[in-house]
Amino acid sequence: MAAVVLCGSNRMGRSVARLCLVSTKGTRRTDSRLSCCSGHQAGPGWYSRGTGVRFASRLAGGRTADASYRKNALVAAGAAVVAGFMAGFSHFQRAEMATRIVKDEDGDREILEKCKGFMSAPMTDVEVLQQTKGEMSTRMEMLIMETQAAFCRALEEVDGGKFRVDRWERKEGGGGISCVLQDGKVFEKAGVNVSVVYGNLTEEAAKQMRSRGKVLKGKDGKLPFRAMGVSSVIHPHNPHIPTVHFNYRYFEIEEADGSKQWWFGGGTDLTPVYVDQDDAVHFHGTLKEACDKHHPQYYPDYKKWCDRYFYIRHRGETRGIGGIFFDDLDGPSQEEAFNFVESCARTVVPCYVPIVHKHLKDSFSSDQKDWQQVRRGRYVEFNLVYDRGVKFGLATPGSRIESILMSLPLTARWEYMHEPPKGSQEAEMLNVLRNPKDWV
Amino acid sequence: MAAVVLCGSNRMGRSVARLCLVSTKGTRRTDSRLSCCSGHQAGPGWYSRGTGVRFASRLAGGRTADASYRKNALVAAGAAVVAGFMAGFSHFQRAEMATRIVKDEDGDREILEKCKGFMSAPMTDVEVLQQTKGEMSTRMEMLIMETQAAFCRALEEVDGGKFRVDRWERKEGGGGISCVLQDGKVFEKAGVNVSVVYGNLTEEAAKQMRSRGKVLKGKDGKLPFRAMGVSSVIHPHNPHIPTVHFNYRYFEIEEADGSKQWWFGGGTDLTPVYVDQDDAVHFHGTLKEACDKHHPQYYPDYKKWCDRYFYIRHRGETRGIGGIFFDDLDGPSQEEAFNFVESCARTVVPCYVPIVHKHLKDSFSSDQKDWQQVRRGRYVEFNLVYDRGVKFGLATPGSRIESILMSLPLTARWEYMHEPPKGSQEAEMLNVLRNPKDWV
Repeated sequence: MAAVVLCGSNRMGRSVARLCLVSTKGTRRTDSRLSCCSGHQAGPGWYSRGTGVRFASRLAGGRTADASYRKNALVAAGAAVVAGFMAGFSHFQRAEMATRIVKDEDGDREILEKCKGFMSAPMTDVEVLQQTKGEMSTRMEMLIMETQAAFCRALEEVDGGKFRVDRWERKEGGGGISCVLQDGKVFEKAGVNVSVVYGNLTEEAAKQMRSRGKVLKGKDGKLPFRAMGVSSVIHPHNPHIPTVHFNYRYFEIEEADGSKQWWFGGGTDLTPVYVDQDDAVHFHGTLKEACDKHHPQYYPDYKKWCDRYFYIRHRGETRGIGGIFFDDLDGPSQEEAFNFVESCARTVVPCYVPIVHKHLKDSFSSDQKDWQQVRRGRYVEFNLVYDRGVKFGLATPGSRIESILMSLPLTARWEYMHEPPKGSQEAEMLNVLRNPKDWV
Repeated sequence: MAAVVLCGSNRMGRSVARLCLVSTKGTRRTDSRLSCCSGHQAGPGWYSRGTGVRFASRLAGGRTADASYRKNALVAAGAAVVAGFMAGFSHFQRAEMATRIVKDEDGDREILEKCKGFMSAPMTDVEVLQQTKGEMSTRMEMLIMETQAAFCRALEEVDGGKFRVDRWERKEGGGGISCVLQDGKVFEKAGVNVSVVYGNLTEEAAKQMRSRGKVLKGKDGKLPFRAMGVSSVIHPHNPHIPTVHFNYRYFEIEEADGSKQWWFGGGTDLTPVYVDQDDAVHFHGTLKEACDKHHPQYYPDYKKWCDRYFYIRHRGETRGIGGIFFDDLDGPSQEEAFNFVESCARTVVPCYVPIVHKHLKDSFSSDQKDWQQVRRGRYVEFNLVYDRGVKFGLATPGSRIESILMSLPLTARWEYMHEPPKGSQEAEMLNVLRNPKDWV
């Protein structure tokens, strides 16, 4: 059984109708950490837990701006078929839509089935995703949700712990789902974030983008944008298990004439505390394989870009042993760019999880732990001083700070004038960070 | 007995003669950490240790630019009288200088005696300081050296440990003396830095200064500057002993017509982990007393400025409970501005050391230690994201990174979504950081 909750609000100057289907039976978690509407369920098993369905429907962010929706939902015990919201359309429109819905039933069901495996309901309502399933922003939102879920489940399996899932909304438009596993058996701090945000670019953000060579023609000085991405940083306890970071993102800006500028960015990189040649070769090899399927130049170019980007200039060191990094990818076609990003996103589990398993039982000394802590300090330095994403986030009004700074380790250390003894394993690591290597 | 080492180099387009008197007797420390010339002594007791005298004489940085010096030194066992370097001057000049030297003998002796108490030889050679003792840059250099020594000695007395003293040179001109006590009995990390640097402003630095409203007229695009300061951050082990920070600095820029723009800046502020009303009143009261001697508006204005400056915007919290902070102080006269800065610098020991003594034996729980570590994380966030000095340092070529980042704590912690329970002492602290109070 289901009840309908309709909340009205005005976002981005557009009238917004919010429609939520919430179970009137079964356990209702009242976790104050969750901000999906007012305490609707989010979290691991968000779908299967409880007897009903919870979908928050919102029309906002330029996805279905000209439509005005009403409810028409069929809810079966434990499953939902959202048939569309028909009232308000002309007879002709309704007839057309009915056909479309019948035609796309398989596709709609596929979206719904995928959503059931996510860590939380996607930021965009399932029925909106179904109706716009051909659009790049929908395909990307599905990809980042899938990537989050796949990575979280793989880490939960290794660790034995469960990710805490926080769903948050951004006053200016959109929101995100932050999954964090803190103080686990294997992971000191593991964070996997998804965010889907929209609104108008701030002057500062537009300036930053122009400085990157983008010609942006706004209407009345406004540049509506839609940005989404998945990003993750995993800090394990054991200094023999490296830290990993990845981030895949998509950006769309609507120009004065209604056309869209879009681009992808992303990358995956490894930050070990000690050099392990085999790990490095496995990690880079897996990435190279994914890249090579799309273009032979992708891996060599994006490997170099990664070394250049994750560089702690004031230390003269890279943050880790790199991987791949790219930004402003707007070709050769949107389809091909997406396929490449999809391949990359699907390598995060095979890149990292085998390395975690390999070192799970490695013993370590307190000196090795100290060296890990010093390296964590450097990680903090990079993230707070240079990382473009963090800088953008801290400067963007309405950002969720806890999600942005989730990348910081649980613990870090700054020793004055720390320099490992010559010939030590620590010095070997530093040498690699000072002179990036080609691993494959 | 003394030997003379003459090293020639060219700095800032000026011919530089470097003259060092080094002992040929007694123990010579060959500490690779020291970069004063090539291993001349620096460190606690730099003056009294050994049997001879070590003064590095350098004419650079626009202090005595038109003279070309040679040696003429008298060295007695355990003490030195530097009589001046006379060769190269005309007979008339020599006669004049002889008179001046006799006249200023008391002043010269006073400078020498003060230098004996410093943590290391001052960056500018003692004889140059003696010859320019009326100049503001000399008076300020003496003040920052005195402040460093007084504060270090007071902390050594409390801790029982000794500061490590590193003397460093900046390729582009000048250098500094970093004193660090790490992992002491009382202090986790205590750093007291002095630096005296000169050269030409980088374009970036000039831009920053112009953005602060300074009209700078350079010659051939060059703006010779001289900057000096003392800065300190003290992180104790015990969470009931607050962290303290102070910094007093002087800046001079030479314009195209040879005139000088100058200003002072500085401040002292406290970052407790728990609110202690009495400590706050003592700390602010001591600062107010020092300020009130100079102008009744100084304390209220600079207290507000401090709360505004040490603000972690993305957290909506101040870094600590404040103190005073000011910058660009160029009036009412240079003399009065210096006197004010001198008063402030002389309060650092009475502001802080009594608080340390008071809490020396306070017991604490592991939860309290954790809260301290979370607050240390915030300290790192402020210093790396907002602190103007750190940002300037990291962006300035030739900066000594270890001295700049000495302000970071030995250990820090980032807990996802940390929020202390309502009504707890931790929540009380947060409340004060979110709503700065007037303490006196």
